[in-house]
Amino acid sequence: MKHYKLALIGFGNVARALARLLVRKQEWLEQQGITFSFTGISTGRHGFAVNPDGLDIQKALQLVESGQSISALSTSPVEDSLAVVKNSSADVLFENSPVNTQTGQPALDHIRTGLNLGMHTITANKGPVVHGYRELTALAKSKGKMFRFESTVLGGAPVFSVMREAFPLAELSSIKGIFNATTNVILSRMENGESYDEALKYAQSIGLAETDPTNDVDGWDAAIKVAALVTVLMDTPMTPQQVNPTGIRGITPEMIANAKAEGKRYKLVCSAEKVDGKVTASVAPQLVDSSSPLYGMMNSSTGITFRTDVILDYSIILSEKPGMKGGPVETAYGLFADFVNIVK
Amino acid sequence: MKHYKLALIGFGNVARALARLLVRKQEWLEQQGITFSFTGISTGRHGFAVNPDGLDIQKALQLVESGQSISALSTSPVEDSLAVVKNSSADVLFENSPVNTQTGQPALDHIRTGLNLGMHTITANKGPVVHGYRELTALAKSKGKMFRFESTVLGGAPVFSVMREAFPLAELSSIKGIFNATTNVILSRMENGESYDEALKYAQSIGLAETDPTNDVDGWDAAIKVAALVTVLMDTPMTPQQVNPTGIRGITPEMIANAKAEGKRYKLVCSAEKVDGKVTASVAPQLVDSSSPLYGMMNSSTGITFRTDVILDYSIILSEKPGMKGGPVETAYGLFADFVNIVK
Repeated sequence: MKHYKLALIGFGNVARALARLLVRKQEWLEQQGITFSFTGISTGRHGFAVNPDGLDIQKALQLVESGQSISALSTSPVEDSLAVVKNSSADVLFENSPVNTQTGQPALDHIRTGLNLGMHTITANKGPVVHGYRELTALAKSKGKMFRFESTVLGGAPVFSVMREAFPLAELSSIKGIFNATTNVILSRMENGESYDEALKYAQSIGLAETDPTNDVDGWDAAIKVAALVTVLMDTPMTPQQVNPTGIRGITPEMIANAKAEGKRYKLVCSAEKVDGKVTASVAPQLVDSSSPLYGMMNSSTGITFRTDVILDYSIILSEKPGMKGGPVETAYGLFADFVNIVK
Repeated sequence: MKHYKLALIGFGNVARALARLLVRKQEWLEQQGITFSFTGISTGRHGFAVNPDGLDIQKALQLVESGQSISALSTSPVEDSLAVVKNSSADVLFENSPVNTQTGQPALDHIRTGLNLGMHTITANKGPVVHGYRELTALAKSKGKMFRFESTVLGGAPVFSVMREAFPLAELSSIKGIFNATTNVILSRMENGESYDEALKYAQSIGLAETDPTNDVDGWDAAIKVAALVTVLMDTPMTPQQVNPTGIRGITPEMIANAKAEGKRYKLVCSAEKVDGKVTASVAPQLVDSSSPLYGMMNSSTGITFRTDVILDYSIILSEKPGMKGGPVETAYGLFADFVNIVK
């Protein structure tokens, strides 16, 4: 039986879903010879706590979800997230704090610090992948640890691990997909007659789109995912600025109606292609017809198609079903899968 | 650098594509510290050969493809496939000989013999999976070796390895998919106005359907794939007879036209569900609408949707593009991926 001390930097919806998933899967993990405790938690507005003997996770969840601070759980004073990293004596660091996608901070610093202290690091944040993949991977390697980020692109649905584990020695030549759920919901609802504003309001009402929808509707969320995929899977550092996305604001109800009449749909298509070692990438609305795997991805469904030298178009689709829970729980599973794959 | 001696039992389209793929990827394998030689080849009609120092694979390909025997390449007399297994001194056995799907033979005997001699065994044959999964897996484990079969279900597209490597500790509750390309081509073409007979003739003309199409059109090929998936991924032994398939012969052009008018399509839907530890499975034509990931799988595209406790519907789709080569090369990649994943 091997014991792992876990630190949670960021304790929002995803991190709390992860904590609950770990507890739910505790017996199965023990059957694999894995036990764990939470030795550090850093929250945005509800304080910080460390305890090398293990924090009471149920108590921490309860405190935060009733708006109270977790500081009283701490066995020594910690006043910021970096102090939690340093004083958690954790074996595995889960970095899920709010991130500045332009700089990757403060996630980058958390991950660097964790790796330097000999922790495996796992994040659902795209920022540190886009801004630090090569550096952090090299640092992790030098410490005999791992840096993993399965949850960054398609919720928690396996994407990176599929390419890493299931496509050995394959040459990836192109990626194409729908990576942003908000814009896909908006375009799907506009096809059913809603205006852009009505569809956006709906996406906001279900908690999908933020109050300021810029990041989604102007393509930046999609672009950083493309950048992360290219950086990791095509071994070519790329930023969202280089992807230079075009969003969906220019798509009118008339354009959508005309497309529909021709059996086509507008989708915010993400793509990247590697030709002779050079990568070009884009995010832009495109017309797709029913022969494309993207055509059937409606509402909040997302997906990706890989083209390699060995298997023709191989697509992964994450279908969201109305009324079934997804979101944070799925993203949490990506973090959980990274953890299990690192330690097994 | 670790050297692996390989035996090829069965030297048809898939095995020859595998040999060529291994040669093409030779440099990449060396970068992973892997070298290989072919020390045994068993063909159906062109003889048998072993050479512990390595057979000339280009010569063997050339002989078989020009209708000649490979026996002259052998350094000792071998007169049947089991003798090739035994005298190949191989580290890895690729079993791709014609199989009786009712019994799994002679593949079962080849694999048993190989495992008993301490070889890893890899097959694209569904028979030994359905008829011997538990026995062969236990035997492999007792020898410290592996038994793998990635290419059995979706050509060589990763399916088993995705569940094994990318979904750790997930509970699989259902599988749904289109596993048979021939029937999907026939149904797709009938939607465009062809009769069943015309569509079948087309599928035969492109080398997809056999002269006697029973195995495909009556659902048996799909049923053995369902049985293999259930046996392995739901840990419940199942035979194609238990799946008891219904094929597509009862689907009339009128039914297809009526479905089309309602925006629906007939698909030969494969499914399996595990409820309270009990598995039910079926293969039968079903109407699907555009909200289903199966709706967009046209012509020879195939795919599978997994439902687990951690990720909502996760689909893998292998899209075939007219004019792009697939088939044996893709199936060969599944065997190749099994090899790399075993030895790395």
